[in-house]
Amino acid sequence: MVPISAIIMSAPKTAIAPTRAEDFPEWYQQVIKAADLAENSETRGCMVIKPWGYGIWELIQQQLDRKFKATGHQNAYFPLLIPLSYLEKEAEHAEGFATECAVVTHHRLEAQKDEVTGKTRMIPTGELAEPYVIRPTSETIIGAAFARWVESYRDLPLLINQWANVMRWEMRPRLFLRTAEFLWQEGHTAHETAEEAIDETRMIHGLYEEFLRDHLAIPVIPGEKTENERFPGADITLTVEAMVQDKKAIQAGTSHFLGQNFSKAQNIAFTGRNGQVQHAYTTSWGVSTRMIGTLIMAHADDDGLVLPPRVATQQIVIMPVTPKEDTRDEVIASCQALAETLRHQSFRGDPLRVHVDTRDLGGGVKKWEWIKKGVPLRIEIGPRDIESRKLCVQRRDQEISAKAFPMKDDFIREVADMLEDIHQNLLKRAAAFRDANIQACNTLEQFDAHWAQENPGWLLTPWAGDSEQEDELSKRHKITIRCIPLESVTLPPDALAALAGDCFLTGKPATVRALWGRSY
Amino acid sequence: MVPISAIIMSAPKTAIAPTRAEDFPEWYQQVIKAADLAENSETRGCMVIKPWGYGIWELIQQQLDRKFKATGHQNAYFPLLIPLSYLEKEAEHAEGFATECAVVTHHRLEAQKDEVTGKTRMIPTGELAEPYVIRPTSETIIGAAFARWVESYRDLPLLINQWANVMRWEMRPRLFLRTAEFLWQEGHTAHETAEEAIDETRMIHGLYEEFLRDHLAIPVIPGEKTENERFPGADITLTVEAMVQDKKAIQAGTSHFLGQNFSKAQNIAFTGRNGQVQHAYTTSWGVSTRMIGTLIMAHADDDGLVLPPRVATQQIVIMPVTPKEDTRDEVIASCQALAETLRHQSFRGDPLRVHVDTRDLGGGVKKWEWIKKGVPLRIEIGPRDIESRKLCVQRRDQEISAKAFPMKDDFIREVADMLEDIHQNLLKRAAAFRDANIQACNTLEQFDAHWAQENPGWLLTPWAGDSEQEDELSKRHKITIRCIPLESVTLPPDALAALAGDCFLTGKPATVRALWGRSY
Repeated sequence: MVPISAIIMSAPKTAIAPTRAEDFPEWYQQVIKAADLAENSETRGCMVIKPWGYGIWELIQQQLDRKFKATGHQNAYFPLLIPLSYLEKEAEHAEGFATECAVVTHHRLEAQKDEVTGKTRMIPTGELAEPYVIRPTSETIIGAAFARWVESYRDLPLLINQWANVMRWEMRPRLFLRTAEFLWQEGHTAHETAEEAIDETRMIHGLYEEFLRDHLAIPVIPGEKTENERFPGADITLTVEAMVQDKKAIQAGTSHFLGQNFSKAQNIAFTGRNGQVQHAYTTSWGVSTRMIGTLIMAHADDDGLVLPPRVATQQIVIMPVTPKEDTRDEVIASCQALAETLRHQSFRGDPLRVHVDTRDLGGGVKKWEWIKKGVPLRIEIGPRDIESRKLCVQRRDQEISAKAFPMKDDFIREVADMLEDIHQNLLKRAAAFRDANIQACNTLEQFDAHWAQENPGWLLTPWAGDSEQEDELSKRHKITIRCIPLESVTLPPDALAALAGDCFLTGKPATVRALWGRSY
Repeated sequence: MVPISAIIMSAPKTAIAPTRAEDFPEWYQQVIKAADLAENSETRGCMVIKPWGYGIWELIQQQLDRKFKATGHQNAYFPLLIPLSYLEKEAEHAEGFATECAVVTHHRLEAQKDEVTGKTRMIPTGELAEPYVIRPTSETIIGAAFARWVESYRDLPLLINQWANVMRWEMRPRLFLRTAEFLWQEGHTAHETAEEAIDETRMIHGLYEEFLRDHLAIPVIPGEKTENERFPGADITLTVEAMVQDKKAIQAGTSHFLGQNFSKAQNIAFTGRNGQVQHAYTTSWGVSTRMIGTLIMAHADDDGLVLPPRVATQQIVIMPVTPKEDTRDEVIASCQALAETLRHQSFRGDPLRVHVDTRDLGGGVKKWEWIKKGVPLRIEIGPRDIESRKLCVQRRDQEISAKAFPMKDDFIREVADMLEDIHQNLLKRAAAFRDANIQACNTLEQFDAHWAQENPGWLLTPWAGDSEQEDELSKRHKITIRCIPLESVTLPPDALAALAGDCFLTGKPATVRALWGRSY
């Protein structure tokens, strides 16, 4: 027998091993595993999204979809396979995706007996005259449809969104953050004028910022990508950049003004108000299952996932405490009744999602399972609580040991406020972390020294360099300009100093402030 | 100038040409075009689903998804690409899909200059050691995940559903009914015992029947497929069969009991209550965008689409009648106000979907557009209606010219009943049509003569033939046994006679009644 003291000594202090400080990438994998969110499959680079993870995606999808519809967009669906010739039309775009395209070349299989092993194998046959590419993104195929649909300025704007799977062959896949297949939404719009298309690009940029802040509790920095970092084929790429707990950046969503690049390549032309045939201005924009990776890296802790309430598959889990068989039914009934009452309450417009865990497992096992799954509120109700009309409440954003024992009626009245408080607390914590890790930088010495540190934060610099200089610095330090933050963005006081000086590299008067960082 | 009499003479009598009677297949294409539901794309056999058509799919999806969740299923997502070796594991299954598989063989493209034309072309490169197939269905890849997930009987049942795109290379595609890529849901479950798995298969079969009847107003005949017609790899295939207006059958949804065929091929094994390792019993079931095709063929008429209210992208369209500029604003405001009031009403649990069409188009043009799109209720409000507090209501399930002029308040009070009445009316009409076109048949002469007719209906026969005999009859008449209807199904009185006699082919005592028909 192992002595109890030895068990205690060897027990890990946290539910996730290794901790964030010990090994961040491995911690990330372990959080996903412990929360049962997703797993790798035998299809190279492709993941299986398990119910607890897919539930988060369904909530993201529902809540974003409402916003898209409220701003006049309609959903549609376009083919998965893109003829190679479509891709060839926009050279920069084709080049941008060429190295990561899955190509369909055959359309049937034939059984063949292997002479050596005697086994029957399926062999591709029916070679296609023109191969197809599985969409890495749909500008080309949606553009071809737009070209058919648009004739007059009266047909504009065309505001379309698609929820779909896309495929980009990834050499170094990582669950949610970078997978060969991922789920996303891609908006595609066509407009009469450049101004309208730019307005749309900006509106969606704002919508993404707001969504990340108000739904995922992630405070992003909105800004514009430099030419080096733009989407292949875009004139302007706007981005929202999130900082996660290892101080790296994640591009959480982008919206692109495509000018007339695609409309000329695909002939999206219309008769204008002046009677002249002209090319439309188009945009595209998207967020993906990558947001779930961002969410994990932004909020999870050494005990597992921490879910912001709005996208929590379950917001509240009620655990009946049933030490004795004779009170068991009563306790479970009381828990079910509370769950029903709570389901009639709402948080930010949606009914509460409440689960009662009646499984016959040890209380500790259950509790730790829900901690690792990141459920915002855990409730315990035991036989004595029924009489006293109290319950035990634990918040995932507080110490695991922290407990409150409110009256049940008070809890029901205040539960929405409590969820709101959890959301605000996660947001505040993430914003404080981000602000503490953005520094201003005015000299090249300081700049070079910064990136030699382990897990360096972001630098904000006055900038007037050109593309080649940017590229050289990027390669030297394995960094990129994450964005040129919008002028309206409030940055930490220290970082504001960056605005004062001349370009730290060229010494020329700075035209913009650039935000540099390592990224996923 | 063309004289008015000539215009009237040349005007088509119906909005859709040709009519159903003139050319049913072409009528179908024209209804889809006139309602702006979908169109062909340059990707062979793949369609673009346009917003009005995708809206129907979104409603089908939401409403079915609720039913799946209410019966304990959870959504998840599995890879699009299936390793060839997975498909090889279940031989019958592999063979069943071999002739229609899109195969991915390369994972990148390389730009190559064409020596002759001077143009740059993209060439597939990066050949894969093992090709992948785009899922034609996901039994094999989901089974592989189940094999990882299931260890003990405590992990069962596993009740999973996936909303996804799938691909089956179709040689004769037809919008919605048969496309190379289509959208669907596929349920996959694993159970401890055969009984539980069969119960699940039956429960979903009932759910599909109910969904088609109560949401799509389509009265289907539920039954079992014969061995010849089973899903490749299934022990039992249950189906719901719809009759459309050319009297052909459409298989609208299937649910399969897979026995241990897939669990043995993929080793979905668990330790049972008796401590023994055993194989699970699995099921799979699905409905697809094919349901939209069924819906069109079941309800549309010679003036275009007719939508059952529950799945109508818009249930009510309000058209302001604005003959004079000075009352225009007032009329539009009144329409908008009515729309808002109606949106707070609900029909079968969902808020009403109401659109106000304020476009500057002729009233006739607008009206016909919504007729062709199949909107259940059209409302017109003009300047004089505001004073009299009346409105003009037209129902899509009634004559185009039929109008009612209720008081606005009465209409608001009764609108949900009116939608219910439309639903019931469509259902009753379709059921009457179906019943009028199912005949009993007891002799081979009668049977052979029946199929020589143009557009023959279905035949219900006493049956005791074997697979080969079934196959021979099927080939002779280009028909199939659509199903062996459940014993509980009530069939038209005439058809019931079929139960009386011996098998019409073999003269043996009939073991079942078989329902024969031509199908899509």
